[in-house]
Amino acid sequence: MKPLDERVEILTDLYELTMAASYFENDMTDPATFSLFIRNYPPNRAYFVAAGLNDFLDCMADFHFSESDLAYLDSTGMFSEDFLHYLKNMRFTGTIRAMGEGEIFFKDEPILEVTAPIIEAQIIETFVINSISLASLIATKAARCIHAAEGRTLVDFSLRRTHGIHAGMEVARSSYIAGFAATSNVLAGKLYGIPIAGTMAHSYISSFGDEIEAFRAFARSFPQKTILLIDTYDTLAGARKAAVVGNEMAAKGHKLKGVRLDSGDMITLSRQVREILDEAGLEDAGIFASSSFDEYKIARAIRGGAKIDAFGVGTKMGVSADAPYFDIVYKLVQYGEHPIMKLSPGKVNLAGKKQVFRRIDDRGLFAEDIIGLADESINDSYVLLKPVMEDGMLLNPHPSLDEIRARFRDNFERLDEKYKTIEKPALYPVKISDRLRALLEAMSQGEPEGFWGNSA
Amino acid sequence: MKPLDERVEILTDLYELTMAASYFENDMTDPATFSLFIRNYPPNRAYFVAAGLNDFLDCMADFHFSESDLAYLDSTGMFSEDFLHYLKNMRFTGTIRAMGEGEIFFKDEPILEVTAPIIEAQIIETFVINSISLASLIATKAARCIHAAEGRTLVDFSLRRTHGIHAGMEVARSSYIAGFAATSNVLAGKLYGIPIAGTMAHSYISSFGDEIEAFRAFARSFPQKTILLIDTYDTLAGARKAAVVGNEMAAKGHKLKGVRLDSGDMITLSRQVREILDEAGLEDAGIFASSSFDEYKIARAIRGGAKIDAFGVGTKMGVSADAPYFDIVYKLVQYGEHPIMKLSPGKVNLAGKKQVFRRIDDRGLFAEDIIGLADESINDSYVLLKPVMEDGMLLNPHPSLDEIRARFRDNFERLDEKYKTIEKPALYPVKISDRLRALLEAMSQGEPEGFWGNSA
Repeated sequence: MKPLDERVEILTDLYELTMAASYFENDMTDPATFSLFIRNYPPNRAYFVAAGLNDFLDCMADFHFSESDLAYLDSTGMFSEDFLHYLKNMRFTGTIRAMGEGEIFFKDEPILEVTAPIIEAQIIETFVINSISLASLIATKAARCIHAAEGRTLVDFSLRRTHGIHAGMEVARSSYIAGFAATSNVLAGKLYGIPIAGTMAHSYISSFGDEIEAFRAFARSFPQKTILLIDTYDTLAGARKAAVVGNEMAAKGHKLKGVRLDSGDMITLSRQVREILDEAGLEDAGIFASSSFDEYKIARAIRGGAKIDAFGVGTKMGVSADAPYFDIVYKLVQYGEHPIMKLSPGKVNLAGKKQVFRRIDDRGLFAEDIIGLADESINDSYVLLKPVMEDGMLLNPHPSLDEIRARFRDNFERLDEKYKTIEKPALYPVKISDRLRALLEAMSQGEPEGFWGNSA
Repeated sequence: MKPLDERVEILTDLYELTMAASYFENDMTDPATFSLFIRNYPPNRAYFVAAGLNDFLDCMADFHFSESDLAYLDSTGMFSEDFLHYLKNMRFTGTIRAMGEGEIFFKDEPILEVTAPIIEAQIIETFVINSISLASLIATKAARCIHAAEGRTLVDFSLRRTHGIHAGMEVARSSYIAGFAATSNVLAGKLYGIPIAGTMAHSYISSFGDEIEAFRAFARSFPQKTILLIDTYDTLAGARKAAVVGNEMAAKGHKLKGVRLDSGDMITLSRQVREILDEAGLEDAGIFASSSFDEYKIARAIRGGAKIDAFGVGTKMGVSADAPYFDIVYKLVQYGEHPIMKLSPGKVNLAGKKQVFRRIDDRGLFAEDIIGLADESINDSYVLLKPVMEDGMLLNPHPSLDEIRARFRDNFERLDEKYKTIEKPALYPVKISDRLRALLEAMSQGEPEGFWGNSA
């Protein structure tokens, strides 16, 4: 069964198509530039991690309306034959400048800018927001978990409660970008090459009826991969049985990989279980814990002295539970030669085609970002928006997932601790360049000629 | 571009497959029954709406591992040739009893029960939870919005910020089940037959540079469907221009459908805009509002006297922002002849194959539910779990989406107001039948013979 065996061109808001039809009828064909950016930080966030670009670009490179989609649009009675004919031949011919996946960015900074004939740039709005939003949301949440884990191993366990199956795939991929070691999601292993992990559930233990027999059976089946779930009945008794089985495995030349805790007081239990395993000579057997972990609970466990080597991180990461969406928007910033701006309270748009410039301090850390105009150059900085598509063609092969992961790791090391702390982080300095500021000021006074924005 | 052109059999947690391999090697082939249920109410919830069943059943009816999935599993080196051969021939041959989509249910009640050889029943765990969880989460959130709107029209605007594209489709479908009138999601219109809605964004107005010219252009393009977005510059000035265009349309025999507010104080603005439209003789033009609405904000607007005819409900509904996941689990409750129970604090499982019985009071309202054993009959009640699949075969054609929507509406009318209120709802009475209680008590004392559960 293929649950979503459909193209994505009409996976869009109807208004993208009605606006497009009206642009078409009014011969509005000038190039428009739209900026994708996040307007506000959710609670406890002071940075974001870019993700989702590669899949989005693949969709743009192959953009065309199918016959069945056109037939459906025709059946609505809303669109003229001429416009449907236009859609039939439409391809995405625009230019996209974007931050690479794995890049760290901040609020108000364009993650990408699209320049294309206004119909094309408009019609992709819904899809581009959806593509980048979820992937970046989860990469950001997963980065917070990685930070809280202070080097301990994290594994994505979220698939069962992600928002559907596409989200399950994106969560596996985005959490791997952020530094997770593996995922439980087997299809993500197949498609993305992410290491897969997992051993047994309580149902496995219960179905045997006898805990130690279940442990032995599993050790026979997977002598190299045995992590025993020990909390089905009584965690400490379970740990003692696991120790027995661990020594039986050792006698056969195998090695118990570890045990898993899934309920109870993780700090106390992990310390007690560590003692039981150590006393049995199983110092190498790890303690794996999974039980509603997120960055906050991981940090509390570590602070409390838990002896946990690896965390299974599930639902709360997989839905970004404390911040399940971004205030992310895709706004028209230029049409033809005219920069466009919106100044409504809380809904500021920075006009014009832009660039994000980043300065590094003498320790190699991010010092400040400057949002400027696309054609500026700013001393002692490097730029974050790079051309990735021109005239609808991909400019480069996609970086591999491991390259993206390495890019994130490098970025994250350069982000000062004070911006990464999971509660009450400091605000990273993001400035507006002098030239952009001058443009915005002129525009808010009704200048330059041709300004069509608003000052609310 | 098809973003998820894959079968779902290995869209699963690895441990489902490692457990299956171990059951296989230990010749464990007895039938197992698993129950899917929600353990706790999220904040402000006291009921749930079942959804997601039809797609799940279609996947089960067509369950088989593809050659490429088997090749990937082989490449991991974790599975024996014998087991992979078993998987190659595996089909889902089980029985499923389930609540229909659109049914209202409560915590601890099985939404569905699967009985199948343990490998089959286990291997589908991740997929069944994911399928039912998201659809029911959103149907529940959408039902809350419908309740708060007190009969006003709601439209799903969430696609851009749902958790990926599969979620975007599920949100359109689940919100329609709960009573939303339409969706902005065009693909959902095509695939599900849901009415689609939408007109224009701020970028449309900005690209014309002159607000009234933009209004006129749109009215020319869509004379039957014009809803004018009036807050791009100044809402009241926008309303006056919309009134002018509305009268121009009337002069041509057309009718302005309405205006849309998207920012600012919705109560004050909607009342002022209503006056402007009424004074212009446009009493029939509706006021549509979209601006971070969810059930709470809808209720506040109505309580405050807003003159809003229809709400566009987006992100907060589409991600169920105040409760972005359910504590939903799929637990082994019987293996062979042995009922299985878990009594860990906060993680109670009700043992055995079960049924949910519902009583109606003399006003036709839901009076109470009783969770009993599957083979019980309870006077003056009807049952909610009905056979939907036997020996892996669908028993009935799926009900249509409109039938599901009607079922929900009927259910919702029978749910007393006190359980529906969006803050601090009362708890609906769900009892345990005498026979089930006797079983649970016997089991928690180590009886009957063959009990393999735990009492923590």
